[in-house]
Amino acid sequence: MEQFHINKLVVVGVGLIGGSVAAALRKAGCVGRVIGIGRGRANIERALALGVIDEISHDLQLAAQGADVVIVCVPVQQAAAVLERLRGALHSGMIVTDAASTKLDFIAMARKVLGERARNVVPGHPIAGAELSGVDAASPTLFVGKRVVLTPMPESDAGAVARVDALWRACGAQVTRMDAEHHDRVFSAVSHLPHVLAYALVGMIASRSNADELFSFAAGGFRDFTRIAGSSPEMWRDICLANRELLVADIQAFQNALSALADQMRAGDAAALDSWFDAARRAREAWIDGTR
Amino acid sequence: MEQFHINKLVVVGVGLIGGSVAAALRKAGCVGRVIGIGRGRANIERALALGVIDEISHDLQLAAQGADVVIVCVPVQQAAAVLERLRGALHSGMIVTDAASTKLDFIAMARKVLGERARNVVPGHPIAGAELSGVDAASPTLFVGKRVVLTPMPESDAGAVARVDALWRACGAQVTRMDAEHHDRVFSAVSHLPHVLAYALVGMIASRSNADELFSFAAGGFRDFTRIAGSSPEMWRDICLANRELLVADIQAFQNALSALADQMRAGDAAALDSWFDAARRAREAWIDGTR
Repeated sequence: MEQFHINKLVVVGVGLIGGSVAAALRKAGCVGRVIGIGRGRANIERALALGVIDEISHDLQLAAQGADVVIVCVPVQQAAAVLERLRGALHSGMIVTDAASTKLDFIAMARKVLGERARNVVPGHPIAGAELSGVDAASPTLFVGKRVVLTPMPESDAGAVARVDALWRACGAQVTRMDAEHHDRVFSAVSHLPHVLAYALVGMIASRSNADELFSFAAGGFRDFTRIAGSSPEMWRDICLANRELLVADIQAFQNALSALADQMRAGDAAALDSWFDAARRAREAWIDGTR
Repeated sequence: MEQFHINKLVVVGVGLIGGSVAAALRKAGCVGRVIGIGRGRANIERALALGVIDEISHDLQLAAQGADVVIVCVPVQQAAAVLERLRGALHSGMIVTDAASTKLDFIAMARKVLGERARNVVPGHPIAGAELSGVDAASPTLFVGKRVVLTPMPESDAGAVARVDALWRACGAQVTRMDAEHHDRVFSAVSHLPHVLAYALVGMIASRSNADELFSFAAGGFRDFTRIAGSSPEMWRDICLANRELLVADIQAFQNALSALADQMRAGDAAALDSWFDAARRAREAWIDGTR
């Protein structure tokens, strides 16, 4: 296998994900020069001070000139503006990839903004914790053993896809390829829906007249269950809107599951409840044990 | 304040809760003789070997003779049978209390089985973790700083209520009194509903044809969110049935909250989603920080 190397990498958004990619590639000896672009002045200067990036740029068009790879690690609602600015600098040897949690919308955006040059785009989604943010939380080992999903478009350049695959493997990740719609469907169920449920529950309890009393009796189970309701509201608002079609369908499926359970309770159907709860517990245990 | 002391304590069900009560009272020097009764032979013998109890009994009527306090720490569906066996031994100076998660049904059961002697009963609910079970998980410090809710009935003897209050304070707990229906309403929202949601989500995902794939992309957020779906199916089936009326109402309220969120997504109402998610995050943070 050819040694993977990037001479010039541009990281747009040097936070937890962007900073960790830069740090991981540096540690693996796979990158030459890293240019960082970010909106937050303190954060981007910290990235430079930490050696995560070699240079700060305030001009994406300029920074992208001669770049091998541009990785876009900004909230998905800001990605269109980034792609607009990239358009003029996009040359045939340059690869653009991203790290957003939803893929169909990023692809639609890339096609709309870049037209035929969207073939240089390889959409990606690293599955790595999002509770921390900023470059101070970045780590060269963040992606070790983690999964990264690439959702190449039919028009994506095969060489570009292979290079982005190699990029993530150089970061220690396990890379999977998937159709973008399938990706959004999978993450609607295992990530977006649980976040909505946690926000819905905490919001419902917080809006009750005896909210203080209710929280005062909430225990450890509630704390863990609702931990993801501590995630960034802006990020999750954007994810819910970007993936709304599939997510709303999952919300309805979940409401149907709740109706079935409520019917079992009303009917006093102990066996049905037992069977549901037991199947859920066994499925979860098999997942945790890695036997699933 | 009079020194709280129990000469003879009977613990029915010497698991995590029953074992911890016995151990805590012993450590506090508040108990003379502790008789343990349990269905699982290995567990009850282990309780004796650990010194959590002084004696094993297989005859509740006999064990209860001359007892000051009998604490019933069995799944709520078994409580009726325990109360039946206690009936003959119940004398005016004996206090019966319990540790079940739902209180209206325990009260109905006590009134039905014990009639007028239900005045000796003080229903209680210690809010302490239920992930572990068995006497090996018991600890004299399990209740330190934890909340215990007592839900005395109008007919409960005031002296008995004060003694059970003192019992839990001797274990280090913070005791609150509450009307039983209010108790069941509070715990429906902050405990029973989250368990149902976790079981419902895991069950829904496990039943999909691509369940293995879905679990393979589930990450840390999903693990924490669904941790309570690892709880005992039998215990939670019983809780759901015991508290079904209030719980089904909460399930419907939650379905309504989900419908409102889905409507906001369909309408592309970013501001409404943002406001909901942000309010939930702030409410949760205030709870975690103790500023709520």
